[in-house]
Amino acid sequence: MTNAPQEIERHTFAVLVDNEPGVLARVIGLFSGRGYNIESLTVAEVDAAERVSRITIVTTGTRMVIEQIQAQLDRLVPVHRVRDLTAEGRSIERELALVKVTGTGERRIEAMRIAGIFGARVVDATLSSFVFEITGASEEIEDFIGLMSQLGLIELCRTGTVAIHRGATGF
Amino acid sequence: MTNAPQEIERHTFAVLVDNEPGVLARVIGLFSGRGYNIESLTVAEVDAAERVSRITIVTTGTRMVIEQIQAQLDRLVPVHRVRDLTAEGRSIERELALVKVTGTGERRIEAMRIAGIFGARVVDATLSSFVFEITGASEEIEDFIGLMSQLGLIELCRTGTVAIHRGATGF
Repeated sequence: MTNAPQEIERHTFAVLVDNEPGVLARVIGLFSGRGYNIESLTVAEVDAAERVSRITIVTTGTRMVIEQIQAQLDRLVPVHRVRDLTAEGRSIERELALVKVTGTGERRIEAMRIAGIFGARVVDATLSSFVFEITGASEEIEDFIGLMSQLGLIELCRTGTVAIHRGATGF
Repeated sequence: MTNAPQEIERHTFAVLVDNEPGVLARVIGLFSGRGYNIESLTVAEVDAAERVSRITIVTTGTRMVIEQIQAQLDRLVPVHRVRDLTAEGRSIERELALVKVTGTGERRIEAMRIAGIFGARVVDATLSSFVFEITGASEEIEDFIGLMSQLGLIELCRTGTVAIHRGATGF
């Protein structure tokens, strides 16, 4: 972390919480109450036996704000553990998007061609439309969406980022 | 919808909202305040120019509860539109998971074999671990996790469900 203290950084947090009613509301309330930005958020149960969910939050802020977020998440009672994957480095970030594109003729062929380049798969098709599924880092997905928006993009759905630390150790 | 009124149904809602501070807190507050269940939730911006985000919520409840959820989401001011994709039928639901598995020898070979069957990709590897990326319907992902948990699963991260209506019409 050699950035200037005032510089806005983007950080990805992984948060393990008890999967009980109201936990997500408290985590999000922490952000909205203090005006912290949420760029994306995903939540899903990762241990059904222990009733543990994992929340991935991508946020932006100065270094001080990022440190406050981590400290305050850590203080929430239903939170088991918080990791700032960006600060730790060496994490894999992935996202899934469903992208609906309509068009015929050359535009349709071009959409297929670009999908092939990006490794996107067709998960639904009509004579005048495709739904593509694409996975990748957020920047790749942005690039794909940017191209498709010139070729008839009419609907879009993104999961937001999930992230995991590289290597052989667990959370 | 021929289910009995008391039966618990699982529904997937797609919600377009203004991407402004506090919107997510209000949507989630609606669920936690009334004790409605959130099975998974994803949120991401889908129109940067118009500052619109799309939230996908998978919830469970009786038919009456499901109808209440839709009506109450519709009434929130920053909500542009709510669709009950399950009630409409013909939607595609997908999810992404990152699954870290450690092991050597025959277990490692078996993990690779199963990953191949499920179409999972290796996105990180050490001599004793893999991180797999898998996409699919939630049930497929559950099946994959179930098998991997017998082969050395040590960490898991899921996006939760995104969903889009089949066919050529947009949201």
